[in-house]
Amino acid sequence: MSNPDAKLREEAVAGNGLLNRRALLRGALFSAGMAAAGVNVAKAEDSVGADAPEWMKTPGRPFSGYGTPSKWQEKVQRIFTLAPGRAGTGVSRTPLHLLEGTITPAGLHFERHHNGVPDIDPAKHELFIHGMVKQPLAFSLESLLRYPMETHIHFVECAGNSGAFSAPQAQQITAGELNGLLSCSEWTGVRLSTLLAEAGVAKDAKWVIAEGGDAAAMSRSIPLEKCMDDAMIALFQNGEAIRPEQGFPMRLLLPGFEGNMNVKWLRRLNLTDAPVDARDETSHYTELMPGGKARQFMFLMGAKSAIVKPSLGMTMKGPGLYEISGLAWSGAGRISKVEVSADGGKTWGTAALTDPVLSKALTRFRMPWHWDGRPSTLMSRATDEKGGGQPTRARWIAQYAPGQGYHFNGIQSWSVEADGTVKNVYA
Amino acid sequence: MSNPDAKLREEAVAGNGLLNRRALLRGALFSAGMAAAGVNVAKAEDSVGADAPEWMKTPGRPFSGYGTPSKWQEKVQRIFTLAPGRAGTGVSRTPLHLLEGTITPAGLHFERHHNGVPDIDPAKHELFIHGMVKQPLAFSLESLLRYPMETHIHFVECAGNSGAFSAPQAQQITAGELNGLLSCSEWTGVRLSTLLAEAGVAKDAKWVIAEGGDAAAMSRSIPLEKCMDDAMIALFQNGEAIRPEQGFPMRLLLPGFEGNMNVKWLRRLNLTDAPVDARDETSHYTELMPGGKARQFMFLMGAKSAIVKPSLGMTMKGPGLYEISGLAWSGAGRISKVEVSADGGKTWGTAALTDPVLSKALTRFRMPWHWDGRPSTLMSRATDEKGGGQPTRARWIAQYAPGQGYHFNGIQSWSVEADGTVKNVYA
Repeated sequence: MSNPDAKLREEAVAGNGLLNRRALLRGALFSAGMAAAGVNVAKAEDSVGADAPEWMKTPGRPFSGYGTPSKWQEKVQRIFTLAPGRAGTGVSRTPLHLLEGTITPAGLHFERHHNGVPDIDPAKHELFIHGMVKQPLAFSLESLLRYPMETHIHFVECAGNSGAFSAPQAQQITAGELNGLLSCSEWTGVRLSTLLAEAGVAKDAKWVIAEGGDAAAMSRSIPLEKCMDDAMIALFQNGEAIRPEQGFPMRLLLPGFEGNMNVKWLRRLNLTDAPVDARDETSHYTELMPGGKARQFMFLMGAKSAIVKPSLGMTMKGPGLYEISGLAWSGAGRISKVEVSADGGKTWGTAALTDPVLSKALTRFRMPWHWDGRPSTLMSRATDEKGGGQPTRARWIAQYAPGQGYHFNGIQSWSVEADGTVKNVYA
Repeated sequence: MSNPDAKLREEAVAGNGLLNRRALLRGALFSAGMAAAGVNVAKAEDSVGADAPEWMKTPGRPFSGYGTPSKWQEKVQRIFTLAPGRAGTGVSRTPLHLLEGTITPAGLHFERHHNGVPDIDPAKHELFIHGMVKQPLAFSLESLLRYPMETHIHFVECAGNSGAFSAPQAQQITAGELNGLLSCSEWTGVRLSTLLAEAGVAKDAKWVIAEGGDAAAMSRSIPLEKCMDDAMIALFQNGEAIRPEQGFPMRLLLPGFEGNMNVKWLRRLNLTDAPVDARDETSHYTELMPGGKARQFMFLMGAKSAIVKPSLGMTMKGPGLYEISGLAWSGAGRISKVEVSADGGKTWGTAALTDPVLSKALTRFRMPWHWDGRPSTLMSRATDEKGGGQPTRARWIAQYAPGQGYHFNGIQSWSVEADGTVKNVYA
């Protein structure tokens, strides 16, 4: 074999060990680090001939109607802590650092509830479209199922996601705790514009007040323009009926807009000529500015990315080849580029994006990295097809009053220490 | 409003009411059938002001670590029947007629077990690559997680799927019972060719014998060419660790090849110069021909489609607009076209395909249909990018000995009766 060090230098795409992904497909680059990676070279042939494992000696368990994860995965759970007396109010987060690919299993989709998850009888639920329309309408679930459906893969991200980055000190918590108010599903439902056309939108209507059928009657004002664009009444999530925590039997889906507006358990769409100044668009989900004013109706989620492998909680097992991977997304459209740095932002290499790269959906990026064992700072930055990008954390923070944490999309950094541990750092 | 009948005639794409999908987006076509569809026109404004439903009056339930479907969806289960004394051998099917979109929730992925689902401790499981290699290797799960990953959406289909169509009489069972040995997931794992390059393939190796770590030690012979192409060691399914029923902690994924070869609980890959004639490539999964000979090693799943809406078990609620929708797929690549007929195959219209149309993945097709209330026969036929298509059932049957049911990809038909019920027919 040729000198692996020389080979690594040839394949560099940026400083401190970032490599060309195509090099891996040409093979055998990993050999140098195989032993460190735990590949057992010496004893493979012996082991094959050894006694079969216990689970090959007795019949396995029988069929099941609805499957669940392996018992060995019991720690892969949504992350939440309950404040006393507020059992149904708060958030749970998707454990992004324990997942792969781009689809979030429905059981691990993040939750944001304002008064718990209602138990709605789908046969008794109706969706009302009323207000500034020619003909108010009430849709049963059964009637919606008659309409033409659409299917799209989209992320939903809470406006408060990654708010921990507004803290003065870098929080030593996992990638899921930092960024897990973010999930991605295949949604199927009826395009809202089809239903609005049936009701007949009055000439002066400009806003739609969406209200949920939960005990908080959670409400938001939505520009009519978005409702006539790609908004959907979502009935299915990853192939099956939408889950209770995501709005069973139906939710509003506003691709790319902050999560809170994607009203769950959707019960009413009231067309008006002005926003309603609901609780969750005045006391919450606004951006406090340095002068003390707050910006309202900042709907669109910006271009953003986060490395989830390696990340806090994982330990690097010595120098050698690793894959850096993470997620990139933008409310404005497709991700066009993700760059990764292993030297704290001095040099950047372009990561590979997993096909298909879809509009307003999570995109997985990957880059091979030869870690030389010295302390290193990893960063990622995404660009979307509209030219949107990510500022440094410092520049993002400087825009707002101290502590304002909505809509964070600054560049994130992990430091890999000499002992292989990973820390959240402001670099 | 203009005359709806004239409008419907204008928008026809084929006989007996098949319509142009774009017409629906221009709006208001549905109005004609709204009342029949259960849309409540008269009372919407009154209802909005009425008393709130019970679930808005009490707080809902709190957060959960791993979510499950709504209790109102308890009938959405995999379909299986157990033969006495064979608890771990057989199949369960995905209820395709109860699902939407293209992703199959992992809990509803079809199962095919030969001696039950083993309970494998992932820390003790190893994958051996041995036989005609320069260096036999043993990979732990932890070592595989170090390798560069790939993510792809692919279907898996049992070679015996749709075997009921080989019966002389059309079976009156649901679309899930007919075609549900078929599921589609986002798979993430390590490309097999990367691992084979590490082991070093001997010059004369031509086959790879894959063996599962279950109590059946289920084995299949796979051409080395496929293993060096798009084969993957899959570790994740729809974002989370692969489910026990699909091979936890790892399975072989051979995109487009018959399901049985995608060996679950993968334990060994033995490189050889000849196939091994394993039980499941001799006594099963072969095609019995009219002369009494059987064709072996028919790996590739053909172009295929099935309408799931409407389908048996659903009842049409009177004349009006409906959406016909279904699934199309091919082991050879992307679906390029799906045609639908509402007049038993006399005329065909081209259905809309849901983006993204991916290679060797389920593709959802949709077509609006104005049912006039008279008996009608619905059919679909798919074409893939390699030019593969679907024969009539009669032509498909004529190729084989009576009763041979593997690899069925003939055209399927539903008849819609005047009373709105749906039947499986050989048309």
